[in-house]
Amino acid sequence: MLDVCLLGTSGMMPLPRRALTALMTRFDGSSLLIDCGEGTQVSIREKGWSVNPIDTICFTHYHGDHISGLPGLLLSMGNAERKKPLTMIGPRGLSKVVASLCIIAPGLPFEIEYIELEGQVQDVKVNGYNIEAFKVNHSVACYGYNIVIPRNGKFSVDRAKALGLPVTLWNPLQKGNPVEYGGKTYTPDMVLGEKRKGIKVTYCTDTRPVDIIADMAAGADLFICEGMYGEDDKQDKALQNRHMTFYEAAELGKRAFVKEEWLTHYSPSLVNPEIYMDKVRQIYPYVIAGKDRKSVTLEFGKDE
Amino acid sequence: MLDVCLLGTSGMMPLPRRALTALMTRFDGSSLLIDCGEGTQVSIREKGWSVNPIDTICFTHYHGDHISGLPGLLLSMGNAERKKPLTMIGPRGLSKVVASLCIIAPGLPFEIEYIELEGQVQDVKVNGYNIEAFKVNHSVACYGYNIVIPRNGKFSVDRAKALGLPVTLWNPLQKGNPVEYGGKTYTPDMVLGEKRKGIKVTYCTDTRPVDIIADMAAGADLFICEGMYGEDDKQDKALQNRHMTFYEAAELGKRAFVKEEWLTHYSPSLVNPEIYMDKVRQIYPYVIAGKDRKSVTLEFGKDE
Repeated sequence: MLDVCLLGTSGMMPLPRRALTALMTRFDGSSLLIDCGEGTQVSIREKGWSVNPIDTICFTHYHGDHISGLPGLLLSMGNAERKKPLTMIGPRGLSKVVASLCIIAPGLPFEIEYIELEGQVQDVKVNGYNIEAFKVNHSVACYGYNIVIPRNGKFSVDRAKALGLPVTLWNPLQKGNPVEYGGKTYTPDMVLGEKRKGIKVTYCTDTRPVDIIADMAAGADLFICEGMYGEDDKQDKALQNRHMTFYEAAELGKRAFVKEEWLTHYSPSLVNPEIYMDKVRQIYPYVIAGKDRKSVTLEFGKDE
Repeated sequence: MLDVCLLGTSGMMPLPRRALTALMTRFDGSSLLIDCGEGTQVSIREKGWSVNPIDTICFTHYHGDHISGLPGLLLSMGNAERKKPLTMIGPRGLSKVVASLCIIAPGLPFEIEYIELEGQVQDVKVNGYNIEAFKVNHSVACYGYNIVIPRNGKFSVDRAKALGLPVTLWNPLQKGNPVEYGGKTYTPDMVLGEKRKGIKVTYCTDTRPVDIIADMAAGADLFICEGMYGEDDKQDKALQNRHMTFYEAAELGKRAFVKEEWLTHYSPSLVNPEIYMDKVRQIYPYVIAGKDRKSVTLEFGKDE
């Protein structure tokens, strides 16, 4: 079960009723954040979620609207006496950018571990999440992310009983961990069936609609995608600023055959995204205009 | 005439309905900001004021909650194609702190001029404002500010006529500037009466209640002062964190005989400042609990 909250939908600058675009997920006690613009910590509080369980922060890129809220968030975590290390993932230069911003957040009481991305696609397993970072096409190095919650095969009570394993050892095996019993090692494959489909959320902002996005988003339960412009006359501007229109974002969702797509990262000049949605849904009917703090809980599918 | 807006009243961290403490003033087409925490630019937009005419930014100190919104504000000014230079005033280290934060705001289309404060009191005349910075007592170097709008003496039409000055030259003289006419220099003192009382706003946050504050705030039209704690049992915490209680702030206002005092910079744990105000007003009746975007227009007094 994965809780997902789109913390904001604004691009470029925070507005009174539109926070900067960022995503937060909660899974198994560990929260993950993608991007942290000015005001992201306020939106988290507004949602009623806590900054304390955030163990992982992924950055798409280092334009101000995607990272300007980081020092404030780190200070709030420090004030809450966080001790656990925090993992940050982002394009090359991450540790330098964070160190530079932290001139106003000195002496944090926790460690920061940096994972700097290189190349086209990079997988990172951290804090229960399988993260797939993929390079998109913006004016600076920028990555999209798949947040995947893998699901083990079905646990076979019959097989566990046949092996004579006590019930107390079933849970770790079910979670994919080997156990020792009676001087022997038992591995999960001995009691689990074939791997089942997990949960997949694809997130990408600040990019032209390049092929890799459709490839990486294939079959996603939820695809959160930038749609900077809805107006008919903004195609040139989208090209020039390396952003996407609502219609380009919908085409990507259609190619990837995603279950649902939310648009976000609206231009400050775009007042009401809803008025373009009829036209957008002619391209792909499962596209929704994202709103600040729009949320969903994604569950594993029913067993077939 | 000076427009004053208290943009926020929160200390330490921004909250959903309480922005970080900052002040904005508007005078003669040039706006001034004191401090710029995460979300200050949002509060300016919420108020309906513009970031574009901000020509001066004063910083009390460099704790995150007082400067974390700076890169975002500068980016917004840059996006609005500001070209005019911007003056920043603050304790020593200002240019280094700003340069470090600006790693996410590169290539701004305007110059920044830095005035780094030293010593106990420093006067700065800039963009029509007379600014008096004074060192207060916090855990790091921290300054309070008087924002003073001076007022020249009354213009004497009789004297100007007697000197034979054409009407077109009256305005610059009235504003305090010398003029040339018929090969001679005329100075303002030749046509102006004695200097009259101007407008004075005193602003101080993040400090213990030291004497210099009462001295500098003497007779202010408006005194905006931190009140971090209202609860009876928080005096020790105020001492320990080098902050003030509501009651200490009221004592300062009383000593300075200010016309009106607004409290601000509330601790996140303080939910409703109003419940302490009866007790506060027993100390000094002109104290008000500040609210986000509380505003006033201060006018020059009537001529006596």
